[in-house]
Amino acid sequence: MIKIAVDTLGGDNGSGPVVEAIIQFLKEYKDVSIIAVGKKEELKKLEGVCEIVDAPDIVPMEAGPLEVMRMKNSSMYKTVMLAKEGKADAVVSAGSTGGFLSSSTLLLKTLPGVNRAAFVAPFPTKIKGHYAVILDIGASNENSAEELKQFALMGALYSEHILGVENPKVYLLSNGTEPKKGSPVGKEAYKLLSNYPFFKGNIEARNALNGEADVIVTDGFTGNIFLKSSEGMAKMMGGLFKDAFMKNLWTMLGYLHVRKGIKNISKIMDYKSTGGAMLLGVNGVVVKVHGNADTYSMFCAIRVAKKLVEKDISGKIKEGI
Amino acid sequence: MIKIAVDTLGGDNGSGPVVEAIIQFLKEYKDVSIIAVGKKEELKKLEGVCEIVDAPDIVPMEAGPLEVMRMKNSSMYKTVMLAKEGKADAVVSAGSTGGFLSSSTLLLKTLPGVNRAAFVAPFPTKIKGHYAVILDIGASNENSAEELKQFALMGALYSEHILGVENPKVYLLSNGTEPKKGSPVGKEAYKLLSNYPFFKGNIEARNALNGEADVIVTDGFTGNIFLKSSEGMAKMMGGLFKDAFMKNLWTMLGYLHVRKGIKNISKIMDYKSTGGAMLLGVNGVVVKVHGNADTYSMFCAIRVAKKLVEKDISGKIKEGI
Repeated sequence: MIKIAVDTLGGDNGSGPVVEAIIQFLKEYKDVSIIAVGKKEELKKLEGVCEIVDAPDIVPMEAGPLEVMRMKNSSMYKTVMLAKEGKADAVVSAGSTGGFLSSSTLLLKTLPGVNRAAFVAPFPTKIKGHYAVILDIGASNENSAEELKQFALMGALYSEHILGVENPKVYLLSNGTEPKKGSPVGKEAYKLLSNYPFFKGNIEARNALNGEADVIVTDGFTGNIFLKSSEGMAKMMGGLFKDAFMKNLWTMLGYLHVRKGIKNISKIMDYKSTGGAMLLGVNGVVVKVHGNADTYSMFCAIRVAKKLVEKDISGKIKEGI
Repeated sequence: MIKIAVDTLGGDNGSGPVVEAIIQFLKEYKDVSIIAVGKKEELKKLEGVCEIVDAPDIVPMEAGPLEVMRMKNSSMYKTVMLAKEGKADAVVSAGSTGGFLSSSTLLLKTLPGVNRAAFVAPFPTKIKGHYAVILDIGASNENSAEELKQFALMGALYSEHILGVENPKVYLLSNGTEPKKGSPVGKEAYKLLSNYPFFKGNIEARNALNGEADVIVTDGFTGNIFLKSSEGMAKMMGGLFKDAFMKNLWTMLGYLHVRKGIKNISKIMDYKSTGGAMLLGVNGVVVKVHGNADTYSMFCAIRVAKKLVEKDISGKIKEGI
């Protein structure tokens, strides 16, 4: 039986959608038990459904590492502690990213051979059903070349064992394809990675999602810029197309003809279904959901946590690194 | 009379589209004279149309600074020399970015008070007709906080004088809006910029193109990632929508209803019309066009060069910095 601890507080939408997601999840998956952590009075619907741990405090969005570690009655701290004490195999939270990152790395520690944990997310590419794994997308502000090398190894293991890609192709995100291109740290990482057969060189941001790369390695700051620019542009384009369709009766009629195709695009671009960002490299399974997660996002995140436990991603990294 | 020197070699499509662009441009604008630099035998159509300078050599795409400076018979070197000698007010090239950057900065020098030149491009935003100025998008690989401050000043002057924005709002591209967010250099730049009333703080990549920011400041590596991710995503979304429309007769019928709206989107997203990237901070007007520039792109680039000379952007920066 896989045990997943879920932080029900800290998300922008309160505990409501989280409670719903837990109920739906336990209905669908019988081989998982969930521990819901949060304000007891908000979790009445879960009585008899799953274990409940009372934790009345919410870690504020902008909490620093020290603050989180002092908030021992917060839902987040208690959630992570369940993993530390071996009472949960995985933890899921939609709360403060910084807080979740600090509490997870400080309480669970990084795996041997891993200097820093990385947030990783599978990103839809131009090829239907193919995802590129991008890391780090924001756990760090800067990274050393050695850390980038470790990200490459972890990303390859993730792509292989979680996404089922045989011989994943790993690239460094850069401002040109030649080896001499890139940030100073990137150029150093290029050298360190040159001996690994999975490493295929630099890739430009423009081509990152064309389906060629299975894993894209970058420092946390650049990864955040990549993720957010792509998101922003996708949203802008989506909005422009929507405007074009909603102009008048004729254009709406046009929409009727292509709505299946458009829905298909939404499906391809649906970040929710990939279940948020996983913190790779810590001694445990840690899944961070968007702050504004709804029931569906939370459901998918718990499902990802389950898969990561089943596939023993931490064990694979421990072996592989 | 404004004099513009145009490098006709070095672009992926050869001198053909450049020659066409020059002919069209001189037909439309009578207050400009052009000096076409390139292989004499390829410029026969320009005889009697404009001045021709023979330069048979092409600077290779990946040329280093030393190599370019040694290629004194190259079209690029000769083009930039025309500006250095005061024979041209502006230079335009679709050739090697690195080569053009090196020859321009080494021959023309940076303006007093400017440590490093920056590539800048106006970027279409969600608001129709509004452009955000982003710099540096690739002249440097890394930048100091002082350089970012200078980029902010140059960007504000560009936005005001070239795009006609009153009191432009300047932001730093970052991974969060709070002052403590950002790369180490970014955080330092934040402090340096705090005293300037035009500076409005950090902006996330996701919101960079929502129309709020008139100028977005970033180091060259991050700027390249931002530009290319946005470009890549725009292309991917465009392709997905095209697929949706081209599926069958019904979906094509749908397209007929919205084609005006779709064409409008293409217009908004048309990078060609903004005329490539300008190298701000050098003592002269330097416009770099995409390597795969067609006649229309070259035409727009020459038009931008004309505007930059008319508005005396270099003089404005010299005063303002």
